[in-house]
Amino acid sequence: MHDPGALTREQLGFVGGRLDRVDHIRTRPDLAAQTFALPETRIVALDGLDPVTADGHLVMEAAAPGARAEDHVLLGLDDLQRPIFARLAERVEGGFFPTERSRAIATELPAHEIALYGTARSLVHWHARHRFCSVCGSPTQAEKAGWSRRCDACSSEHFPRVDPVAIMLAEHDGRVLLGRQHRWPERFYSALAGFIEPGETIEEAVAREIKEEAGVTVHSVRYVMSQPWPFPSSLMVACIGVAGDDALTLDETEIEHAFWCDADGVRAALANEPGAPFIAPPPMAVARHLLKHWLDGQLVPPGPSA
Amino acid sequence: MHDPGALTREQLGFVGGRLDRVDHIRTRPDLAAQTFALPETRIVALDGLDPVTADGHLVMEAAAPGARAEDHVLLGLDDLQRPIFARLAERVEGGFFPTERSRAIATELPAHEIALYGTARSLVHWHARHRFCSVCGSPTQAEKAGWSRRCDACSSEHFPRVDPVAIMLAEHDGRVLLGRQHRWPERFYSALAGFIEPGETIEEAVAREIKEEAGVTVHSVRYVMSQPWPFPSSLMVACIGVAGDDALTLDETEIEHAFWCDADGVRAALANEPGAPFIAPPPMAVARHLLKHWLDGQLVPPGPSA
Ligand SMILES: [Zn+2]
Ligand SMILES: [Zn+2]
Repeated sequence: MHDPGALTREQLGFVGGRLDRVDHIRTRPDLAAQTFALPETRIVALDGLDPVTADGHLVMEAAAPGARAEDHVLLGLDDLQRPIFARLAERVEGGFFPTERSRAIATELPAHEIALYGTARSLVHWHARHRFCSVCGSPTQAEKAGWSRRCDACSSEHFPRVDPVAIMLAEHDGRVLLGRQHRWPERFYSALAGFIEPGETIEEAVAREIKEEAGVTVHSVRYVMSQPWPFPSSLMVACIGVAGDDALTLDETEIEHAFWCDADGVRAALANEPGAPFIAPPPMAVARHLLKHWLDGQLVPPGPSA
Repeated sequence: MHDPGALTREQLGFVGGRLDRVDHIRTRPDLAAQTFALPETRIVALDGLDPVTADGHLVMEAAAPGARAEDHVLLGLDDLQRPIFARLAERVEGGFFPTERSRAIATELPAHEIALYGTARSLVHWHARHRFCSVCGSPTQAEKAGWSRRCDACSSEHFPRVDPVAIMLAEHDGRVLLGRQHRWPERFYSALAGFIEPGETIEEAVAREIKEEAGVTVHSVRYVMSQPWPFPSSLMVACIGVAGDDALTLDETEIEHAFWCDADGVRAALANEPGAPFIAPPPMAVARHLLKHWLDGQLVPPGPSA
């Protein structure tokens, strides 16, 4: 299994949250309101959905005078036992892709603050896009300290979405399959990825996506690691599958180009060498850590199990 | 890694789907309509959300005269290259828990037909509960052969939900932690479980849930297997974590009772022995296979890696 500690120098984004999510407070409106009113309560500052930082930390503010608990989501208690909330927005623009500022925090903030920002971002985005009931079209109200929304008209309760995404390498004969999308920067390649659909296991989704996008059949899919990805609220599930052969048939609407890369090429790309065959994803992305995990496996004699 | 082939005698439910999901047809309205009109097209019969079976198979029907492609979701092509659709419903009742009839198919149908039913069930449920736009409250229409819904008023596109759930065993000193909820049948115990939330990895969600529900701190969480669970559309992610000690502090609103069970007790329960310390979950549930996986690990000398 993957050891998150090994990533500290090249930090995977949005993992390592340290908030105590205090489910026992969320589910009690009286406790949630009391918690919001505490003098030590802090609100994560957001600029739209972007982070606000100062001196290498997220900016945390006291609640504004007159602010109402029900306009906030309780993210949890921090290491100092301070309740941390995020203010809900009535509307957000976009939010489906990382912005420059949300990328920049990868090298500015400690891991647990990046994770806190990611949680806030996903929840603020979800609330802004779920102000109406998908069952009956009536307005909904936040409940459970921002961890659900209720429709008074039809009594439906709606919960924050988490969308599982399979992201994966096919491996064949000491090489891995890398692909690039049309809109990506030149020479940038990554692992293939796609949403896990209703009716699939993780492993079945991995096999389907690689088949759809590259025409490659994989077996023996193994799980490597996972990552929350708050654009807007994915759960990246990183896997490796073994390909029976290396023939490619690309879905050209999804994939501009794909190729099989050997360990030397992956090593050069991860080291940002000028002669590398591709530019690897940044440390905040799980794809880079998946490549690193695969490469580490190439450097040692294979054991009885990955 | 887990070998699904080992489960064939005691079949895990809803896995092993064999439909080709034909993404290239879904995304082309003209092709989807042509596909629906083919004479070999079949519609999965459903009674509300319940399965309809005959002679050990799901009942599949020809499209009714005048039926419209846009009222159906294209599940994919079966082994005979027949397009398989499900008819969308305007409303569904409940659907959040298995019914008697949806449980009964576990021993009646081949695995791939149970998986096909599960996919149909999740999608029919999702459409019935997403007839309105969560962003603006206007009506939505099915698109992409039933794989999305579009709001004409605000142009939002909405995709079927898949809700990842962590289901897990804590292990300590040769025993695993089992719990029961208040409403469960007498003596029935299972693995603890809970929804993975925004801002968490799978492993972080496992640790949080065990801490919340039982007061137990786990480390070294390892992934074991996954399963789609169509009540209404979960992705069960089954894991094992190592507990530092065995003291329990139960969340009594969630858990009626919990205990640490040794390998002999788990073996007796899986064998349905009358003297077993608990009644194990049925084969359709991933919790049973997680227990079996753990027990198998107790019977062999530990290797360098699980
Ligand atoms: Zn409603
Ligand atoms: Zn809308």
